[in-house]
Amino acid sequence: MRMATLSELSGTPVATVKYYLREGLLHPGVRTSATQSIYDASHVRRLGMIRALIDVGGLSVARTGEVIAAMEHPDLPLGEVLSAAQQSVSRFTATAGSIDRQAGLDRIDAISAQHGWVVHADNPGRLAAADVLATFDHLAGHDYDVLVQGCARAAAVIAEADLEEVAITVGGREAVVETVVVGTVLGDVLLIAMRRMVQEHLSRKFYPPA
Amino acid sequence: MRMATLSELSGTPVATVKYYLREGLLHPGVRTSATQSIYDASHVRRLGMIRALIDVGGLSVARTGEVIAAMEHPDLPLGEVLSAAQQSVSRFTATAGSIDRQAGLDRIDAISAQHGWVVHADNPGRLAAADVLATFDHLAGHDYDVLVQGCARAAAVIAEADLEEVAITVGGREAVVETVVVGTVLGDVLLIAMRRMVQEHLSRKFYPPA
Repeated sequence: MRMATLSELSGTPVATVKYYLREGLLHPGVRTSATQSIYDASHVRRLGMIRALIDVGGLSVARTGEVIAAMEHPDLPLGEVLSAAQQSVSRFTATAGSIDRQAGLDRIDAISAQHGWVVHADNPGRLAAADVLATFDHLAGHDYDVLVQGCARAAAVIAEADLEEVAITVGGREAVVETVVVGTVLGDVLLIAMRRMVQEHLSRKFYPPA
Repeated sequence: MRMATLSELSGTPVATVKYYLREGLLHPGVRTSATQSIYDASHVRRLGMIRALIDVGGLSVARTGEVIAAMEHPDLPLGEVLSAAQQSVSRFTATAGSIDRQAGLDRIDAISAQHGWVVHADNPGRLAAADVLATFDHLAGHDYDVLVQGCARAAAVIAEADLEEVAITVGGREAVVETVVVGTVLGDVLLIAMRRMVQEHLSRKFYPPA
C-alpha cells in the first residue's frame, strides 16, 4: 500500500507517519521510486502500537523510540526488552531537589526485604519508589504507612497478572515482547484509572452524600 | 522570613518561587514594602507540596494549580477536592485518533458491573480505562483479559488503603485534603514503581537467568 492508504488504515495523519519514519519509530517501506515507497500490514500494526504507547500510554516520542529499538533487536534477551519497557516508569521522576534519596532507598529496601522481593539496585521502580518515600517523609505531618503497604500488596497482585499474561501469550518472541511492552505501559494507566473508580465507589459507600 | 530564606529552607530557587507566586500556586506573603514581603511556615509547607506534585508526582504546573485551587477553597465539599485530585489521571489520556471509545466504555462498564463498582459517568478513571480497553481491542492479536482482571483486583486493594489512610488522618479538613491529594498523586507513582520491582522479582523467580 502507499503512504496515503497507510495513513487512512492507521488513522494517523501523513505528516505524523513521516515524522515517525524520520525518528526511526516506524521501519521504512520498500522503495519503488525516488519519491515513493510501499508499506504493508506490519506498518499498520506498528503504527497501532506507536499510537497506543504515545497517545494512551503517555510515553514521549523519544522513550517510545527506545522501547521500539529494544523490541526490534533480534538478539536482545527478553529480560532487556522488559527492562526497556520498565524504564517507562522513569517518566515520573525528575531530580527532586531537596529530598533525601538515601533515606528513601533505605526505606524501599526495608519494604522489599519485608516482602521478600529481590531486585537489582538499578531497578527503575526502586529508584522511583525511593523518591516517593523520601517525599512522604519530607512533607511530614503524616506517614502514609497504610498507603505504602497497600501499594505493596496491590503491586504484587498486578505483577502476578503481568507474568501470567506473558505466560499465556501465543506466538513467538515478537508476540511476547508486545505483550510485555503494551501490558506494562498501558497497564499502568489502566491500574491508576481503576484506582480512581474504586476510590469514588468506596467514598460514596462510606461517606454517602448528604 | 524573607524570600531568600524561604528559598533556602524549601530548596527551591528564588526564580522558581517567584514563578509559583505569579501562577498562584503559592499564596502571597505579607507585603512590608513596595519590593519586599515576608513569608512563614505555611509557605515552606506549600512549596514542599508543590515540588512533590510536580517533581515526583509528574503533574504539570497547570494541573498542580487546579489541585491547589480546589484545596484552598474553604467551602468546597471534600468530594470535589477529591475529584480535582482524581483529574490528575487525565494527564495520561490524549485524543487517541483511531480508537473506538464507545466500545471501551461498554467494556469498562461491564467490568464495573461485574465488580459492583458504582461511579459517575464522568469519573476520569472510567474515561481513561475506556481508552486503554479500546486500545487493547484495537491492537488485536491478544486480549489482555488476565491483565485487565489483575488491574481490577489491584485497584480494589489500593483504593481500600486510600480510604483507610484518609480515615486515620489526624487534623482538620486541611490535613485530610493533603492526604487525599498527596496520597493519590504520589501513590500512583509508588504503585507503578513497586509493580516494576515485583515484575523483576517474579521474572527472575520464574524465568531464572541462564
